[in-house]
Amino acid sequence: MTRKVALVAGGTTSKWGVYPGTLRDIISEAAKACFDSNPRIKADQIQGFIFCSVFPERSAYQSHTAPWAAECAGVKPNRIFCRVENMCGSGTVGIRTAYTAIASGLADLVMVLGAEKMFVPNPQEIMLNMLTGVDREWEGSTGLTAPVQFALAAQAHMRKYGTTEEQLALVSTKNHLNASRNPYSQFPKPCTVADVLASKPVTSPLKIFDCSSITDGGAAVILAAEELAKELTDNPVYILGTCQAASGFNYANIPDDWADWDVLNQAAQTAYKMAGIKPKDVDVAEVHDCFSISEIIEYEALGFCLKGEGGNFVASGCSDYGGQVVVNPRGGLIGCGHPLGATGVAQAVEVFRQLRNEAGERQVANAKIGLNHNLSGIAEHHVVIYGSKEVL
Amino acid sequence: MTRKVALVAGGTTSKWGVYPGTLRDIISEAAKACFDSNPRIKADQIQGFIFCSVFPERSAYQSHTAPWAAECAGVKPNRIFCRVENMCGSGTVGIRTAYTAIASGLADLVMVLGAEKMFVPNPQEIMLNMLTGVDREWEGSTGLTAPVQFALAAQAHMRKYGTTEEQLALVSTKNHLNASRNPYSQFPKPCTVADVLASKPVTSPLKIFDCSSITDGGAAVILAAEELAKELTDNPVYILGTCQAASGFNYANIPDDWADWDVLNQAAQTAYKMAGIKPKDVDVAEVHDCFSISEIIEYEALGFCLKGEGGNFVASGCSDYGGQVVVNPRGGLIGCGHPLGATGVAQAVEVFRQLRNEAGERQVANAKIGLNHNLSGIAEHHVVIYGSKEVL
Repeated sequence: MTRKVALVAGGTTSKWGVYPGTLRDIISEAAKACFDSNPRIKADQIQGFIFCSVFPERSAYQSHTAPWAAECAGVKPNRIFCRVENMCGSGTVGIRTAYTAIASGLADLVMVLGAEKMFVPNPQEIMLNMLTGVDREWEGSTGLTAPVQFALAAQAHMRKYGTTEEQLALVSTKNHLNASRNPYSQFPKPCTVADVLASKPVTSPLKIFDCSSITDGGAAVILAAEELAKELTDNPVYILGTCQAASGFNYANIPDDWADWDVLNQAAQTAYKMAGIKPKDVDVAEVHDCFSISEIIEYEALGFCLKGEGGNFVASGCSDYGGQVVVNPRGGLIGCGHPLGATGVAQAVEVFRQLRNEAGERQVANAKIGLNHNLSGIAEHHVVIYGSKEVL
Repeated sequence: MTRKVALVAGGTTSKWGVYPGTLRDIISEAAKACFDSNPRIKADQIQGFIFCSVFPERSAYQSHTAPWAAECAGVKPNRIFCRVENMCGSGTVGIRTAYTAIASGLADLVMVLGAEKMFVPNPQEIMLNMLTGVDREWEGSTGLTAPVQFALAAQAHMRKYGTTEEQLALVSTKNHLNASRNPYSQFPKPCTVADVLASKPVTSPLKIFDCSSITDGGAAVILAAEELAKELTDNPVYILGTCQAASGFNYANIPDDWADWDVLNQAAQTAYKMAGIKPKDVDVAEVHDCFSISEIIEYEALGFCLKGEGGNFVASGCSDYGGQVVVNPRGGLIGCGHPLGATGVAQAVEVFRQLRNEAGERQVANAKIGLNHNLSGIAEHHVVIYGSKEVL
């Protein structure tokens, strides 16, 4: 039996979009916001530091970033520190890394900080890194970049299940409306289905309002071992289960039907089993809507509805306030923006706030169980399940 | 009580130096060498994959490398996978990541693979990344790069303790001689103290034979939970203890005297305590001799001798075959080369072989306890302690 692990603090930079400073500044602001959320925690108590960032080498011309970021954050870890990178899924990988460090007994109190500076003076550096997030030699070089891969998934889903462009648009309108209640969101202005359908085409059937964006932003959480967590807060949010799975990297090699992310379903089933819950027990879910189609397939693969019913799930309000599970109350990647390494950590901050009843006008009533799903590629999936109570 | 974790397989690419292929090829060869070392393990049993690499974005123009490398290695992890980066210390960070994943129960069988391609068509890309491994804005830009930082440490050690250039050179001659017995070493030709002293100056007092080099190479190990480890091999090598600590990043902010790495001593003490051993119990040690001075300071900080006695320790043969502890039997970074992300993993492969009595003409007699020390910067330190027997 390993130790229980809980979130005890969390915060984000104050406004996502174009950040008026450097990556260093983003890191410092995110760390400060996290410490400000729990005054009982002192910086010198932090034993571990996990930095989640995808391309500081290109955005800040700085490598060897874990100790550099720790210094920016004002902590001196003496048990564990590293930088993790799993492209868009780096944030939850960081949380899982801290979870295992604590559960295995190597450390008691660990900060996970995600930060990305994507608006830079040399945008070709960022684009080079973004375009090589897929298999550069065998796929990226032929134009099969991420938006095209997700468009192929959307086409497959529409063909197989009759999903419509209007249903895709409803993911975007829901998440933009949610973002309007989130002070740090990059796109806080609500939009209509007509706005989404009329927005600029990117790669059919995806329009620009179906897509997440280039964003500067940062977020941090602190995780603690059970006993320490109880000292540090009256309302810790425990990690109940987690899993990660991959079906491949090269898109052509992925055995799944592109319309069905069975590998995500496998990861989710493992995480649910570990948590001792069923999909219907989830009250609030932060899921990875890098594109609108992603959220629809994720409803299905996470078990919120049956295969093929994702389009109807959003259209009937099941993923909105008052529905079966509130999905992306902070506005998702579409509404908040997507500062790669920060996204998974910011999702965790939202679940932390929701389960502590601290989400203000975004609060999901009686939220007891939260889920955090983050992905990179369309072949890799990370699921973390949280609960506000130690034992269900 | 968490689960015990053991190494059950390990291998390296066949010849380090200029690799006649791409980073992809290095990964595939390292994975094959690892699987070849233990035919009982099948690729489809691997549940986790940790990739240790510092600059695939620049050496191979490929980001999002964990699933990419997993595909090159022929594995499909379904519990954990990520890329870790801690500059020169990435390899042991990867081993620690796999250790915590297994100890905490998230996975039972995890491959850790380190690979670096440093000889590339565009060397300016590599140099840019190397030069930004220190604080670029506040130190690197003024010329305070890694060789200079270690030269300052050497100057401080010589001034404070009377260490000589001849003693520094003895680290190099020992490690070159050891490398001559290692088939994959980049520099297998023995050299004399006179050769070292006459070699090209780099930054006083360091000459080129005091320094590790630019190297292509790869290495992989597989870690397993105790019960599974016993099924997979008759001679598992258990991880008994591990720690990591940092005193800072910016060299000017490091509180230690540059001649004494107290933060390494702290990390080592924590790891020894976890392992239940004393420094004198260590039979064989792979330590991070990125520069000759490093190994001398490490003797002291790891507790093999008292502060200030590192120069005499090597000069009296205490760190050689027949001495107190055999240090760097594979030839160290000076003899083998230093393919950043691969180094810590290759050190672990050597300890694995030594503790299983499989090191051929390099075999340390009656080796029961092995230590693996890897660093990045001069402020961060990683220590992993291994034993061939489950209980001491």
